Amino acid sequence: MKPLNVAVLGIGNVGTGLIETYRLNKVKVDGQTNQPFNFKYILVNSIDKLRTIDLKDSILTTDFQDIIKDDSIDVVIELIGGLHPAFDYMKRALEAGKHVITANKAAIATYGPELRQIASDNKVLLRYEASVCGGIPLLNTLSENLLSNDFEELVGILNGTTNYILTRMTEEGLEFDEALKLAQEAGFAEADPSSDIEGDDAAYKLCILSHIAFGLNVDPKDIPKHGITKVSKEDIEYAQELGYKIKLLAAAHKKENTVDLRVNPALIKDTHPLASVNHEFNALFLKGNALGELMLYGKGAGAMPTGSSVLSDLIAISKKTPSMIEQKTTIALENRSLLKYYIRLEVIDEPGVLGKVATLLGEHGISLDSVVQRARGNKVAPLVFLTHEIDKKTLDGAIKSVEAYDKIVEIASLMSVEN
Amino acid sequence: MKPLNVAVLGIGNVGTGLIETYRLNKVKVDGQTNQPFNFKYILVNSIDKLRTIDLKDSILTTDFQDIIKDDSIDVVIELIGGLHPAFDYMKRALEAGKHVITANKAAIATYGPELRQIASDNKVLLRYEASVCGGIPLLNTLSENLLSNDFEELVGILNGTTNYILTRMTEEGLEFDEALKLAQEAGFAEADPSSDIEGDDAAYKLCILSHIAFGLNVDPKDIPKHGITKVSKEDIEYAQELGYKIKLLAAAHKKENTVDLRVNPALIKDTHPLASVNHEFNALFLKGNALGELMLYGKGAGAMPTGSSVLSDLIAISKKTPSMIEQKTTIALENRSLLKYYIRLEVIDEPGVLGKVATLLGEHGISLDSVVQRARGNKVAPLVFLTHEIDKKTLDGAIKSVEAYDKIVEIASLMSVEN
Repeated sequence: MKPLNVAVLGIGNVGTGLIETYRLNKVKVDGQTNQPFNFKYILVNSIDKLRTIDLKDSILTTDFQDIIKDDSIDVVIELIGGLHPAFDYMKRALEAGKHVITANKAAIATYGPELRQIASDNKVLLRYEASVCGGIPLLNTLSENLLSNDFEELVGILNGTTNYILTRMTEEGLEFDEALKLAQEAGFAEADPSSDIEGDDAAYKLCILSHIAFGLNVDPKDIPKHGITKVSKEDIEYAQELGYKIKLLAAAHKKENTVDLRVNPALIKDTHPLASVNHEFNALFLKGNALGELMLYGKGAGAMPTGSSVLSDLIAISKKTPSMIEQKTTIALENRSLLKYYIRLEVIDEPGVLGKVATLLGEHGISLDSVVQRARGNKVAPLVFLTHEIDKKTLDGAIKSVEAYDKIVEIASLMSVEN
Repeated sequence: MKPLNVAVLGIGNVGTGLIETYRLNKVKVDGQTNQPFNFKYILVNSIDKLRTIDLKDSILTTDFQDIIKDDSIDVVIELIGGLHPAFDYMKRALEAGKHVITANKAAIATYGPELRQIASDNKVLLRYEASVCGGIPLLNTLSENLLSNDFEELVGILNGTTNYILTRMTEEGLEFDEALKLAQEAGFAEADPSSDIEGDDAAYKLCILSHIAFGLNVDPKDIPKHGITKVSKEDIEYAQELGYKIKLLAAAHKKENTVDLRVNPALIKDTHPLASVNHEFNALFLKGNALGELMLYGKGAGAMPTGSSVLSDLIAISKKTPSMIEQKTTIALENRSLLKYYIRLEVIDEPGVLGKVATLLGEHGISLDSVVQRARGNKVAPLVFLTHEIDKKTLDGAIKSVEAYDKIVEIASLMSVEN
């Protein structure tokens, strides 16, 4: 049978993983598609660069025009990353009637609605499984296998770098800076780790997941977002004492016709399946209105895992499986009003301070789930509270009056608690 | 658009869950398929039985002939369970050119090859997502979303009843009989629990998974199988001391062109993701040659979860998604030769017994990973070993010479240890 002609834009880790995965599993894959894949072009920055992978079956080019002008190209796979020129290349490929696959979370989170519209106008497919959590088939599972469900809740550990850092902080009692250094040495954090540790990477992924699950088109900038740079060893220890782990969670909670999206470090019960997702692993926990609880767990990054997800999309295109679903949605973004909170105060260690603070919180209608007071044997001591569900305005008012109390040195930490 | 006409055979828990899930999510589902589902017939034992679900839109019949003779029926959903007449009805429906969906693991494990052939000969689809682990989309994920991978290992907790029993034994220090009684009271074990506790249910599911993952057609009777009735509170405690949990594992290990299938209680490291799958939950952990480790976790049973899986198959048929894959396989069933073992002996509590047993094991070439000796303060004491990898013949020889030693009261327990 005629091969499917493919052009790959960019041949870094993921591109190499894609081609190596196909070579490794060619017999199985071709047996399923009845149509071998021909990686006809590869767009590179430099033709002569030394590469670990043998590309002699492909035409290397530095000019995107060569690809767009070749009518025999059926599929363009964008693996350049970043917004530009990645978006522009995808747009032109779709307009030229070519199917597009990408692993680019920033571009899909930012320009997804526009790209999906162009794909639909040109009757071609746009697939992006690898853009969210590398090797875990999250998007295809949500959009194809779980269509019989309405989703009530998605809670994910979607960023491997931050999960690796928090795991080492937890297991070895390290501070954030020490664990970040170890993550960089182990190759799990980049030299400039800001997109991971500030939560941007997780927010992009949550944005894409919310489109697949709820049909929502959200600007990733509108997702409330806190990174993990302020999480301290001390908070991790108090959380453990209370039976919780601290994880960077990217969560969507649906309530009637609104959904709350947020990315932040949060406390999650030890017994929750997400609490045992450690190191560089990723997981998505969800609740469907029929199937109940489900979790998918695996490697969120890496050349071969991510390459194999790109290859899965190529197989789907070869089998003419339609694009990711376009749901008509009536759902709007709205922040959850009621949350549970973890509050750590540093206070002057004197009799009566705990009672006074608890009274102040009570006067604002805040009832407490747990309290930990631990003497340090010096003048300043920590005071830790877990609240029941309260709205943010009530919390802010209470915090203000607690801050005004002269025995309070600092509001050292404030995080949400997930059930 | 013309509706898809469906006949449902049997309206117990799963049938009720199917229809309720469709009613609950009709707007979303119809929006995706553009073809509403019409549950035209329901095959029942008694027309007049009082039911919790309103079925006035369907024709209730006690005669399968009514369904098979009606050319307007596109899909037959078999939810009777058991081998006969379920198999015969599915065969006749496929031969009459109707697509078939089933949740029947016994029938698919036993007659899968024959039913798949009849479906293929008649150019109709046969789907059975709900036959393995209720609400978790295992089969569709393996066969559709992970096609880019070759599978090296599948290890599953596929039976909710036994996992519930083992969890309560572990958490509360109960013996098997006590925990079984609690499981029956909680509705997680049937009055006759033998198919669950003897491992038959898990073996059926493993048989179906091996077909999907490896293209293997195995008679479920050929899968080596041990139930959990002999697992004692004591073994669970020793396992915990050594850093392991005891779980009923259904596992497939591939090595070149052979695969080892087995169902048995086994020790699994505390840090393994499967170790924290508790109570009635199910999970499948797998290794793909490109994606690495992946785990799917969720509810393996229940009316709505299982019904929603049946509904997913119905959606796939409406969208003309092909049957589960038919892989050409060159893989044969062959038992793994090397395993690690957990051995618990009851011995006369005298000096030198440990040394003598360790020497006997050493003489048979068995090297030890861990040893636990604990005095009970009476004449008989337990002696626990974890071995390194050995073949079964070596183990059997060693056990025979240990048994012959006159200080040995009993070989109380022997289980494999999974990495």
